[in-house]
Amino acid sequence: MHILITGAAGMIGRKLTERLIVDRALNSQPIDKLTLLDIVAPARPAGFSDHVKIRAADLAAAGVAEKAISERPETIFHLAGVVSGEAETDFDKGYRVNLDGTRALLEAIRAAGGGYKPKVVFTSSIAVFGAPFPEAIPDDFHLTPLTSYGTQKAMCELLLADYNRRGILDGVGIRLPTVCVRPGKPNKAASGFFSGIIREPLAGLEAVLPVADSVRHTHASPRAAIGFLIHAAGLTREQLGPRINLSMPGVCCTVAEQIEALARIAGPKVAARIRRQPDELVARIVSGWSERFDAQRAAALGFTAEASFDDIIRAHIEDELGGKIA
Amino acid sequence: MHILITGAAGMIGRKLTERLIVDRALNSQPIDKLTLLDIVAPARPAGFSDHVKIRAADLAAAGVAEKAISERPETIFHLAGVVSGEAETDFDKGYRVNLDGTRALLEAIRAAGGGYKPKVVFTSSIAVFGAPFPEAIPDDFHLTPLTSYGTQKAMCELLLADYNRRGILDGVGIRLPTVCVRPGKPNKAASGFFSGIIREPLAGLEAVLPVADSVRHTHASPRAAIGFLIHAAGLTREQLGPRINLSMPGVCCTVAEQIEALARIAGPKVAARIRRQPDELVARIVSGWSERFDAQRAAALGFTAEASFDDIIRAHIEDELGGKIA
Repeated sequence: MHILITGAAGMIGRKLTERLIVDRALNSQPIDKLTLLDIVAPARPAGFSDHVKIRAADLAAAGVAEKAISERPETIFHLAGVVSGEAETDFDKGYRVNLDGTRALLEAIRAAGGGYKPKVVFTSSIAVFGAPFPEAIPDDFHLTPLTSYGTQKAMCELLLADYNRRGILDGVGIRLPTVCVRPGKPNKAASGFFSGIIREPLAGLEAVLPVADSVRHTHASPRAAIGFLIHAAGLTREQLGPRINLSMPGVCCTVAEQIEALARIAGPKVAARIRRQPDELVARIVSGWSERFDAQRAAALGFTAEASFDDIIRAHIEDELGGKIA
Repeated sequence: MHILITGAAGMIGRKLTERLIVDRALNSQPIDKLTLLDIVAPARPAGFSDHVKIRAADLAAAGVAEKAISERPETIFHLAGVVSGEAETDFDKGYRVNLDGTRALLEAIRAAGGGYKPKVVFTSSIAVFGAPFPEAIPDDFHLTPLTSYGTQKAMCELLLADYNRRGILDGVGIRLPTVCVRPGKPNKAASGFFSGIIREPLAGLEAVLPVADSVRHTHASPRAAIGFLIHAAGLTREQLGPRINLSMPGVCCTVAEQIEALARIAGPKVAARIRRQPDELVARIVSGWSERFDAQRAAALGFTAEASFDDIIRAHIEDELGGKIA
């Protein structure tokens, strides 16, 4: 099987690549080729290197999507996109990369012809939903994004479903909850603290908590997110039906419960490295976010996230810290 | 006030133009200029002719949208689009006209600058929804179109909401129910019989009914549809809030109830001009359509449709037949 990953240089793209190279298979089908595409060249992964092709190009630019699918990859993980903050500050870039890039990819697949019909797994986001919310967001809640990023993701979901319906491809869109604990350095995203209050204390560093302990949110680990992608790639048209865009499950908990889990696993001394420093702007942004999903369809289709925030912390310690706490 | 109507040569566009020329005002604001745009030149309306500008051009073509808004119309009724059947048979044309044309218009508005912020009334469709449906479709039902037309309308709704949210324009999208009784000749649309079984018998002609009498559907007269457009143009940002795309009200009834109303108003002899000739293909298409809406938000915002199917028939007799029945 030949797999194309767009946005392969991002955090999810890198972790998906690593996992596929370890497994050498996708849902039991042996992988014989991997094409990694991103706007900046993805790092060449260790191992499997004869079978990995690296490309740095902009999917929205003329001819790039056509070239990307010219060798007819059977499975495409379409992860490429600019993030929420950038799509909000740079209107043109957000629409060009997130909407036009996706459309270029789908159009290239349509133009390929000759019976080419790949599986396309698209990473959407819970940002397709906007406040006000019911207590738990059902699978049939309407698309009311309150950001340009969420708008672009929702538009791409619709586009993917139409190409799927017409039989041009086998599509599935998965709406990722907040991925936590994100590895790496703190970033400027308003949601960054959800990861920061776990990651930094575990690394022996102080973390700032800008919102109240009562803030509730839904999380899935990077490991769970990769699991969603791989599971999605294995679902058939028959299993999915016409509604191919799905909210993913996650662990719904308050910040207080996140901190309690950290104290349970790493001790109160580690949890004490969190400093409360209220930030009204962040609190206001976060108050517009969804808290809880009732991801019934995803559960019925076999998608699984962690069972508790303790498990999310453990996954971080295992995957990022070699099992050690500072 | 300067008003631009795109898709002005279509049935709704012509009726809106007539109404605006009769009223010489839009929600009490005097109209001093009307620009009528369509891919074919709209007919020059009688009266007001010094103040009407006619243009035949394709909104999706380079420069057309910019030129259309170069005189900064304060209100834009964006009705242009290819219909459901054509968007399904001609993939490229549907996306180009319905999606790219709308995006070109919105982008031209964004590019205009200098504080230009028109009111944009967009005609969406209940085709943004797809089966399976609850008994009545609530305002917060998700967007699951089962046609390319519905997909394009849903994508434009999302785009309009994002441009509205960013303050580029004041937008409102109205999802029209089936417009009935459509004047003119029978067309090939699968929904054509809903109008045909009223229009043809009233004109002394036989009509064919291809579905069961028990089929339930929601209708609004052309007059009500024009009323929706005008009412929508008068709503403020504050009244609409962030969820600017609204399902319109209508009369929900069965085909049997349509026929009973016809017999009540025009007599059993007229109603007897309907010939039952089941068509499995039409029956199957219609079975995938929504039956009923619970258009609570539209009702709360003051949108009104007819109270009964009798009123819809009376509106047709008054507006199209000069009050006379054949």
